[in-house]
Amino acid sequence: MNSPVSSPVPPTYADVVAAHARIASFVHRTPVLTSAYLDALTGASLFFKCENFQKAGAFKARGASNAVFGLSAEQAGKGVATHSSGNHGLSLSYAAGRRDIPCTVVMPRTAPQAKKDAVKGYGGRVVECEASTSSREAVFAEVVAETGAEFVHPYNDPRVIAGQGTCSRELVEQVEGLDAVIAPIGGGGMVSGTCLTLSAIAPGIRIYAGEPEQADDAARSFRAGHIIADDSPETVADGLKELTWHFVRNHLTDILTAGEDEIVAAMQLVWKRMKIVIEPSSAVPLAAILKNPDTFRGKRVGVIVTGGNVDLERLPWGRS
Amino acid sequence: MNSPVSSPVPPTYADVVAAHARIASFVHRTPVLTSAYLDALTGASLFFKCENFQKAGAFKARGASNAVFGLSAEQAGKGVATHSSGNHGLSLSYAAGRRDIPCTVVMPRTAPQAKKDAVKGYGGRVVECEASTSSREAVFAEVVAETGAEFVHPYNDPRVIAGQGTCSRELVEQVEGLDAVIAPIGGGGMVSGTCLTLSAIAPGIRIYAGEPEQADDAARSFRAGHIIADDSPETVADGLKELTWHFVRNHLTDILTAGEDEIVAAMQLVWKRMKIVIEPSSAVPLAAILKNPDTFRGKRVGVIVTGGNVDLERLPWGRS
Repeated sequence: MNSPVSSPVPPTYADVVAAHARIASFVHRTPVLTSAYLDALTGASLFFKCENFQKAGAFKARGASNAVFGLSAEQAGKGVATHSSGNHGLSLSYAAGRRDIPCTVVMPRTAPQAKKDAVKGYGGRVVECEASTSSREAVFAEVVAETGAEFVHPYNDPRVIAGQGTCSRELVEQVEGLDAVIAPIGGGGMVSGTCLTLSAIAPGIRIYAGEPEQADDAARSFRAGHIIADDSPETVADGLKELTWHFVRNHLTDILTAGEDEIVAAMQLVWKRMKIVIEPSSAVPLAAILKNPDTFRGKRVGVIVTGGNVDLERLPWGRS
Repeated sequence: MNSPVSSPVPPTYADVVAAHARIASFVHRTPVLTSAYLDALTGASLFFKCENFQKAGAFKARGASNAVFGLSAEQAGKGVATHSSGNHGLSLSYAAGRRDIPCTVVMPRTAPQAKKDAVKGYGGRVVECEASTSSREAVFAEVVAETGAEFVHPYNDPRVIAGQGTCSRELVEQVEGLDAVIAPIGGGGMVSGTCLTLSAIAPGIRIYAGEPEQADDAARSFRAGHIIADDSPETVADGLKELTWHFVRNHLTDILTAGEDEIVAAMQLVWKRMKIVIEPSSAVPLAAILKNPDTFRGKRVGVIVTGGNVDLERLPWGRS
């Protein structure tokens, strides 16, 4: 799908500072947690930035709030729209609800009912499409034509990236002397915001991304030096876009991958030892640290826990 | 089982202050979390004191650490012992490990292997008994005769109650203007510590306990005005003892009960909306608040989340 913003200009750190002031009343300054057990296990000092405690359960509330509260009064009156079956749709609905403006989220018919209900719970409208990119594009175009709503892309949007950049701005205020920060990568919104902020205010901190082996298009792109799209264009999957590729290419130290079993094991470790509910994707960085101990041993590492929205009745481990 | 301390003397608030100084290096000053969603749902302002983030995963680390670090060097050399298949055994093992002294925990043969492994993981020794009070008493007596270890009862011990009292001391420092505090009750250790502290430094705060309907001997005792023991003396269950009854009888406003389905629903609410892992017993207070809305509406209520040690593979809800 084409972004309505053609050739978007990458945001600057000034945009992050402005975003932080704009969203401060609508998002949490999330806490940083540590675990003596996980430090001993990894040989590193890990500082978990807990966006699972964020409004709407994920860091996406930052970027969505920045987009929503940056709209002119005229545009705000027409509302916002996006396509997302996950945290971005939920967060956009949350932010629009706080500003009391309309929000439409285009979601696949096959998305879990609980996710549709959650969007509606914040006051958003759900419009269903088929689970293909072509259907999503067609349905979304209709929504925008009908409503005049402002499209807020889940990550390929400078307002969203600037909003996500507020997370690592807090992290470096909360933890001194970080050597590295690692975040999960999907479309690259959080990683881009992290690169934007750290390259401006803490350029000595190495930035890593963690990605599942089973969906490693960002890692393959990083190694190839150009965007490698997902193999199956008819699935609706987050891949790097021009803006996020800009930050990944210029500022990332490396993208580390982990297998599904390693990710589930890391997720269980966090639940059991830290007593916090995190999503599988949020466990990818810890899985990558455990898989690459030499890279992180002895280092002070910020680990961005991106979200906690998980279906408790479909946990990725069996009953004994 | 008889406590080696015959006619124990209730601890005073000075003991809580001394305990706090003694254990400060070995336990966390746990955070207080809030939830806009749960506040809207209950009509109250809830302040969750998160002992699930405590060392060894539960508030019991406070009392156990106070007992262990208060021992004379001579007694410490002989170690400590207790009977517990739950958090007290784990916490005593943790505290003994921090002081580097021996710890023996008598546990039923039938206790989950994971719990035995957890005690051993902190350096404690597990001695198995049968799942009856008589077997536990006999095996425990042997352990004490062999080792000369100091018995640290899970709750009917002034050192333990004084240690648990440090939790509500932190809570009133962290949250101003509380109208009420509610904690789960089993044997009554946390509730007694809460009564001890609040009656001394914040006597205007009402103190409630939450108890499962299926094991409501504390509620029945409270109403009757004397200890009513559990109906089945051959099961190993925590019931009120002389010291905890002293505090319950003198300081509690009420004991509220909740059914199993209500407790599981409250537990799910906390996991889903607050993104924290809590034990079923820790969900009893929220279940009681939801069941008695008129008692808490408009009030500022401290809710003690006692622990987060739950078997992730045996969660009390089904898969859809």
